[in-house]
Amino acid sequence: MSKGLRARQDMEKERETLQAWKERVGQELDRVVAFWVEHSHDQEHGGFFTCLSREGRVYDDLKYVWLQGRQVWMYCRLYRTFQRFHHSQLLNAAKGEFLLRYARLAPPGKKCAFVLTRDGRPVKVQRTIFSECFYTMAMNELWRATGEVRYQTEAVEMMDQIVHWVREDASGLGRPQLQGAPTAEPMAVPMMLLNLVEQLGEADEELAGKYTELGDWCARRILQHVQRDGQAVLENVSEDGKELSGCLGRQQNPGHALEAGWFLLRHCIRKGDPELRAHVVDKFLLLPFRSGWDPDHGGLFYFQDADDFCPTQLEWAMKLWWPHSEAMIAFLMGYSESGDPVLLRLFYQVAEYTFRQFRDPEYGEWFGYLSREGKVALSIKGGPFKGCFHVPRCLAMCEEMLGALLSRP
Amino acid sequence: MSKGLRARQDMEKERETLQAWKERVGQELDRVVAFWVEHSHDQEHGGFFTCLSREGRVYDDLKYVWLQGRQVWMYCRLYRTFQRFHHSQLLNAAKGEFLLRYARLAPPGKKCAFVLTRDGRPVKVQRTIFSECFYTMAMNELWRATGEVRYQTEAVEMMDQIVHWVREDASGLGRPQLQGAPTAEPMAVPMMLLNLVEQLGEADEELAGKYTELGDWCARRILQHVQRDGQAVLENVSEDGKELSGCLGRQQNPGHALEAGWFLLRHCIRKGDPELRAHVVDKFLLLPFRSGWDPDHGGLFYFQDADDFCPTQLEWAMKLWWPHSEAMIAFLMGYSESGDPVLLRLFYQVAEYTFRQFRDPEYGEWFGYLSREGKVALSIKGGPFKGCFHVPRCLAMCEEMLGALLSRP
Repeated sequence: MSKGLRARQDMEKERETLQAWKERVGQELDRVVAFWVEHSHDQEHGGFFTCLSREGRVYDDLKYVWLQGRQVWMYCRLYRTFQRFHHSQLLNAAKGEFLLRYARLAPPGKKCAFVLTRDGRPVKVQRTIFSECFYTMAMNELWRATGEVRYQTEAVEMMDQIVHWVREDASGLGRPQLQGAPTAEPMAVPMMLLNLVEQLGEADEELAGKYTELGDWCARRILQHVQRDGQAVLENVSEDGKELSGCLGRQQNPGHALEAGWFLLRHCIRKGDPELRAHVVDKFLLLPFRSGWDPDHGGLFYFQDADDFCPTQLEWAMKLWWPHSEAMIAFLMGYSESGDPVLLRLFYQVAEYTFRQFRDPEYGEWFGYLSREGKVALSIKGGPFKGCFHVPRCLAMCEEMLGALLSRP
Repeated sequence: MSKGLRARQDMEKERETLQAWKERVGQELDRVVAFWVEHSHDQEHGGFFTCLSREGRVYDDLKYVWLQGRQVWMYCRLYRTFQRFHHSQLLNAAKGEFLLRYARLAPPGKKCAFVLTRDGRPVKVQRTIFSECFYTMAMNELWRATGEVRYQTEAVEMMDQIVHWVREDASGLGRPQLQGAPTAEPMAVPMMLLNLVEQLGEADEELAGKYTELGDWCARRILQHVQRDGQAVLENVSEDGKELSGCLGRQQNPGHALEAGWFLLRHCIRKGDPELRAHVVDKFLLLPFRSGWDPDHGGLFYFQDADDFCPTQLEWAMKLWWPHSEAMIAFLMGYSESGDPVLLRLFYQVAEYTFRQFRDPEYGEWFGYLSREGKVALSIKGGPFKGCFHVPRCLAMCEEMLGALLSRP
């Protein structure tokens, strides 16, 4: 067999594998969306139930604002970008006024609740920006899906408020000033903001321009979390990019680093910066995977300590769904951009583990929480922190990226 | 063999078993105290390190006020009530002024921090009463161990403040009033207060008299957590004793119910109320054990749902040290008071499991966090919530109770 023939056969095989994954991912997306459509819509009060048992039973009717915003965003996104999801059931469920009416605690104030009763009364507030970030994502997608300007007004005004809290004055969040509290920056803050910059700037030259400087600032701040001569991504650093003392300073979260990785990859694509891209692949994709993948049982650890002390989080060795869905996105995006076959192999490795361990072939959607060994530890499909978001976002993005790879000549 | 002879032989055997456990427990207490004395004292700033690795290495120097107060209490208690611990090293470590000087955020205000830097600057505050409760326990024991009145003044004034927060006006704790937040009573609140009533009233007729009504109120409030026709102890109920909706209302914590059980047993002893004692044994000892003991792997589950939904706490099926130390105390106290051999059998069952799974014969102290199957999940000996408290308190109380049983004719 000639060299050329063998190379062509290898390429054929590669295409078949990509094609098989595209079909697998697409079918899984259909099943996952069907689960949420069947079980999560609150026909009486609007909004979504997210506390769903394995079978889809509502075991609590509280409405977590992160998850309300994420599900609105996801439905609009699917409606807008997938022909087969372009139907009114998804859009009508997303359009319900629940979030717009109840998320904000005391309009015209911008602070949002963390969790609401079924009929929209506030139960808890967090002194962070995250409810507001998911609210912004939802409103921007609602505007894109419906064309109704009031949604975009909400999105942009909330975005301005968030940026003010993060860069100007955090006092509106209500955190007490304590003498011994370190001025730590959780990586989540610039990550979320960078994600919003991408969301609001998508095909919108005006807003993309408005947020260019902010996007660069976010990227710089995320990159500051690479510490110890490039050998570790730390979850919390000081605002001027120094390692903090104690457990807080040494904390690592491999799945979170991988998620930051694909946010940064998109930033590199916008910027056209292959040098930064190579750095991101190295530090935010390969490094967290090497340190975070469990050599004994497979899967990504949830938390690690940069000095190899035992983390104090009880769930540190558990395998959670979202680090794996984020890793799938990160490696496939890394491969799509760089063509490095190592990244494609890692996508396959993570995707095989993820589909084998987290899928529920019986009732649909994925389990969220496995033991270190990979046994289902919590049988819930949704809860206070798991809704209709990471799984369908991963499947939708992978389906799109696999499609794009297959359509290359 | 005559019936009388066999009964005498059975009794002899029972005494031997009790004697063997007394020795085992006493030796373990020595090893546990030695671990904390060797590794936890901060010679430079005073107070205690509690973030200790398996071997006793300090992996974080933050000082959690719950654990500072508990260790002071434990050292004074051991110094005061055990001849072999009546030495100045324990008392001097407890007497250090760290807690007195730094726990309160802004004297003369009573609110205490939740965690301090190594040198005593506040890092975090909780909007609950628990830092203040452990502060009160520590100050009262310091007074008992040293005779210095300033400690007792602190204890009594703080107690008055706590009672005011709980029964009159909680606004000083800083919790926001939200329209949808249920007015839930966590069982921990009347439990802690009942424990303080016992602590302050011990051999102190004046304070015992002052707090009699409060003790009765606490007992009534704890008993309100028995719900569903006596078939479940629920962690959170409404203030007028009704079941709350959702996960919050259905939450159960078998170890916490068992701890409440022995707090209530002591209340029954003070009151001389055998009828209530029988109710407490039934509802707070036998019922949580029956529902909470893992039939497959042994050990007590951490959280359960009264309707058998999967709990949303990631650690729900893990085996933690303190529910087991509390269960040992509860069953041995129940047996000491009632003479019911069923309770002695349960003490043995729990104690065998606990000594087998949690002890660390190599480095001393107990592991705190096991997987459902009983494997060590976190190798730390101390952390943000585990210090020098539950293990030595359990061992000291069991040694005393076993001694008292053996000294009966």
